[in-house]
Amino acid sequence: MTSAKPAPPAIQVIPVPGIPEVRPGDDLAGLIAGAADLLDGDVVVVTQKVVSKAEDRLVAIDPEVGHKPLVERESVRILRRRGDLIISETQHGFVCANAGIDLSNVEAGQAALLPVDSDRSARRIRDALRHRFGVDVAVIVSDTFGRPWRRGVTDVAIGCAGLRPVVDLRGTTDALGRELQVTEVAIVDEIAAAAELVMGKAYGIPVAIVRGVDPEWFGDGGVVADVVRAPGEDLFR
Amino acid sequence: MTSAKPAPPAIQVIPVPGIPEVRPGDDLAGLIAGAADLLDGDVVVVTQKVVSKAEDRLVAIDPEVGHKPLVERESVRILRRRGDLIISETQHGFVCANAGIDLSNVEAGQAALLPVDSDRSARRIRDALRHRFGVDVAVIVSDTFGRPWRRGVTDVAIGCAGLRPVVDLRGTTDALGRELQVTEVAIVDEIAAAAELVMGKAYGIPVAIVRGVDPEWFGDGGVVADVVRAPGEDLFR
Repeated sequence: MTSAKPAPPAIQVIPVPGIPEVRPGDDLAGLIAGAADLLDGDVVVVTQKVVSKAEDRLVAIDPEVGHKPLVERESVRILRRRGDLIISETQHGFVCANAGIDLSNVEAGQAALLPVDSDRSARRIRDALRHRFGVDVAVIVSDTFGRPWRRGVTDVAIGCAGLRPVVDLRGTTDALGRELQVTEVAIVDEIAAAAELVMGKAYGIPVAIVRGVDPEWFGDGGVVADVVRAPGEDLFR
Repeated sequence: MTSAKPAPPAIQVIPVPGIPEVRPGDDLAGLIAGAADLLDGDVVVVTQKVVSKAEDRLVAIDPEVGHKPLVERESVRILRRRGDLIISETQHGFVCANAGIDLSNVEAGQAALLPVDSDRSARRIRDALRHRFGVDVAVIVSDTFGRPWRRGVTDVAIGCAGLRPVVDLRGTTDALGRELQVTEVAIVDEIAAAAELVMGKAYGIPVAIVRGVDPEWFGDGGVVADVVRAPGEDLFR
């Protein structure tokens, strides 16, 4: 098959161990820069959990009532309920279980809410890494979502900075010169999924570096603006 | 944060250029072994398109009627229609656009249907690589699907061999010793997504190697058996 572009280099997905337990007010960019050898052009993927902790999005859960009132408060629309599970839409437009509220890896009796603006969270980390540590990287904030029709969760992006989240190949021709039918690839979610392979629930590593992605993918954009589908163009809401 | 397991090694995602245009009856395992330096423990990701071509799943499209009758024939259930787009369930249980029928990168007037049994397709490639080329790898057949609620397509697995598609972390404790809330990770889809970053629509590369994944993920399983959600446990069908 003739390549439409030259073959890209290999991509490396590098775990960043050694980040201490993150607490409210912690300097996440400083912790990342201290634990990782970053290069210009890297994509730094940070899990929602440590971003929420650093931004003090921890709330107490009343053991009498459980987490359901909190889920309802953090939702703008409930899509489905089954038993303890609520699938809802958050104020960001994310559709996920329990409004993205995280009960694992936080102290008992506490929950971690999603960042208020996860694109801004990514932008802050990116700006701090650039201005204080002199390295020009893109940043993704990732979270673990289920999906309909398929079992198992995967990591997706809930925020990004320095990256075009969806790469539009519309008008590009394929290897046989025909216009491509499928056009918009959510590379931000594919990078988040790749990062999860070395962070994982099992390893407890909150940061990974994805090195070697196509430099053309760097640019401006946000997950809420570019990835969240408007209800009107969504066939399943 | 204390790691529940030691930090894993970095993962490499390596494109495999140099595979010629695949034709019906071609020996895909031989083409892959000829183009790639495979190691035991690699995951070889192969796009559906070349698998469908090698398995002669190409059909002519009648220009008078277009692809819609074909989509309906390949579907067991239509979920949504909007304009030219049909979201349907295939006989495998995949929910995707146009029953997974591929009109790009095939000759004009032709379409590529999904493999009849994409887990078996993966198994055949894996077995051939092991028996004829002496290398013990897992194989994923990947395809590009849209998703509800989020813009942009991503690659997922439609078949696999030698790999546990969903890794069950139920009962494992997190870094703070609490039982993990989110338990089943669809690593097979995360690996397919990672591979797409170097194959991509833009590069026209149909095979990638994902090297360095956790050896505990190797084992038995299939995408249809382990990833496809039964309609009864699905909240969105």
